[in-house]
Amino acid sequence: MDLKDEFALIDLLTCGGQSTHWQRERGVGVGIGDDAAVAGISPGCSLVMACDTMTQHVHFASWSMRDEDIGFKAMASNISDMAAMGAVPRYALIALSVPKGTDEARLQRIYAGMYECASAYEVAIVGGDTTASISGIVITVTILGEVEAGRALLRSHAKTGDAVFVTGALGGSAAGLALLEHAQRSGAAAEAAIQAPLLQALALAHQRPAPQVAAGRLLLRTGLGRALNDISDGIASEAAEIAEASRVGLAIEEARLPRPAGLDAAAQLLDTPPLEWMLYGGEDYQLLGTVAKEHVHELEAAFEEHGLKLYVIGYATDDFSGVRLLRADGTVEPLAKRGYNHFATKD
Amino acid sequence: MDLKDEFALIDLLTCGGQSTHWQRERGVGVGIGDDAAVAGISPGCSLVMACDTMTQHVHFASWSMRDEDIGFKAMASNISDMAAMGAVPRYALIALSVPKGTDEARLQRIYAGMYECASAYEVAIVGGDTTASISGIVITVTILGEVEAGRALLRSHAKTGDAVFVTGALGGSAAGLALLEHAQRSGAAAEAAIQAPLLQALALAHQRPAPQVAAGRLLLRTGLGRALNDISDGIASEAAEIAEASRVGLAIEEARLPRPAGLDAAAQLLDTPPLEWMLYGGEDYQLLGTVAKEHVHELEAAFEEHGLKLYVIGYATDDFSGVRLLRADGTVEPLAKRGYNHFATKD
Repeated sequence: MDLKDEFALIDLLTCGGQSTHWQRERGVGVGIGDDAAVAGISPGCSLVMACDTMTQHVHFASWSMRDEDIGFKAMASNISDMAAMGAVPRYALIALSVPKGTDEARLQRIYAGMYECASAYEVAIVGGDTTASISGIVITVTILGEVEAGRALLRSHAKTGDAVFVTGALGGSAAGLALLEHAQRSGAAAEAAIQAPLLQALALAHQRPAPQVAAGRLLLRTGLGRALNDISDGIASEAAEIAEASRVGLAIEEARLPRPAGLDAAAQLLDTPPLEWMLYGGEDYQLLGTVAKEHVHELEAAFEEHGLKLYVIGYATDDFSGVRLLRADGTVEPLAKRGYNHFATKD
Repeated sequence: MDLKDEFALIDLLTCGGQSTHWQRERGVGVGIGDDAAVAGISPGCSLVMACDTMTQHVHFASWSMRDEDIGFKAMASNISDMAAMGAVPRYALIALSVPKGTDEARLQRIYAGMYECASAYEVAIVGGDTTASISGIVITVTILGEVEAGRALLRSHAKTGDAVFVTGALGGSAAGLALLEHAQRSGAAAEAAIQAPLLQALALAHQRPAPQVAAGRLLLRTGLGRALNDISDGIASEAAEIAEASRVGLAIEEARLPRPAGLDAAAQLLDTPPLEWMLYGGEDYQLLGTVAKEHVHELEAAFEEHGLKLYVIGYATDDFSGVRLLRADGTVEPLAKRGYNHFATKD
């Protein structure tokens, strides 16, 4: 696009998203419109940085997400990376590449979703870049946050004997995507079937994940959280990362894994083992972490006091390395570090 | 790509780029390998943030840049945004989207170029994301820097009566690209012709721009710099941004515009008015700024002392708004806020 177009497009997309006053109250000195943004970091805090890309036909398609959802989720997945460090998300930059001729209203809806998620988490969108792509929309969000110096919750902090926890139900996002894909392939009847509220809630888990910033902060502030990851790639993979980085083994008990309402109904409808979604599904954006065994009750009480959920699902051990699943039938199965193949059908 | 591929690819691309020790000495607490990176910001400083995307077939092609150049320039254009604020660049994140089946050696070369530029400017590459694209390579670099709180050099800081300066020659990048395009279209003879050292230097200006961080810092540290922009979109456009943001008019004198060696030879060879490249060419990554008239000599002396270049090319005025070019023949011409259409030929 030419320069004039680019400036006009940036105005169109960002105008009214967050006021200068709103941003100023959240530490922004210079927002969108100069070579770079300038903003404050709290004294005593370190900078926390991450970025994530969402690509059309790879991470989303017209049948899996509305435009607003695409923007919301692009922001949410980044905010989740801050939660996974125990950090406070503060600022975001948006790099958007779009094919020439893309409907501006579509981009406005994507941006509206990004602003909706960002504002809900007090994140100021302070800049970005808008360029032409050859094919498909590519959205890269960079998130900047802060954490008390030396206190970030790393995946390498698990210790033998720790309890392993998650902050919410697993497999909802993958089940939701599978339902959406089923409706797309099988037409109107299937689409009607997934209008049932429980199944709709699973679709929503895929489209509008809720990053667990409050849980991450509580784990850090109480001083009780040790290792921490967010579940972007499935619990099997995330657990393997903690196990590897911390040089411990992690035992996960199948019977303790929290499952979302509707998961079994969806599994029956689609003739899929629900455990596949729960272990390898990914994009649940819950937190997976460890806490010293003797502090479990204290942490559970703190979570309950703050209206947050915590499920103990296993323990860290030096009896083995890697991750093992203790099946409900008493057998033990090593878990592969693999993710779920999200997209079978193209847009 | 599946997870295992992604982890292996990240290792391949980042291994040996910058050692943990090197990064630690530059403030990195947690680098690549956790959900987010954690790093320090100097006390009393604000965070400075920007990102820029380079897209295959839009910003680069196999005939215009070697793979190492692509990586180098993606990093350099971002570092230049820090220079344009008077900031110190410190950390970078890389989001790389590549079509399935892209040669890994090619990605290694792109990364090598990014590391080369980053390390030369003391920038630690601390994270990123690697995803599949449908078509073409898309590289988004996010750069984080720091600046003394309240002292960033903004484009809105020009005042009537200020002198307007640039830190180096203009039009080299656009002329270099035009030469490369000519060689691509016209074959072996043309390619031989542009092997002449002067013309090669122009190609290099396009492929390996040098961000002016030292000049930006000097403008800030001396307290003499007022408005500042980097020339990514051509001086006509950048001057218009300063004029608009500062609510002044800028008069630019054609006779004072510094031109790179070889520009006239290239213009003759390609039958192109060199002024077109100088005004609208963009990607020179020099700094364009203003300084109070009474401080010009002091600033020139400071630049000379540090081995840096400074060319006064005009002045700010309230006689008109926008940007006007004072032609060598005595006529005056309003300058349009437009950029140069970089790519006519496809890869």
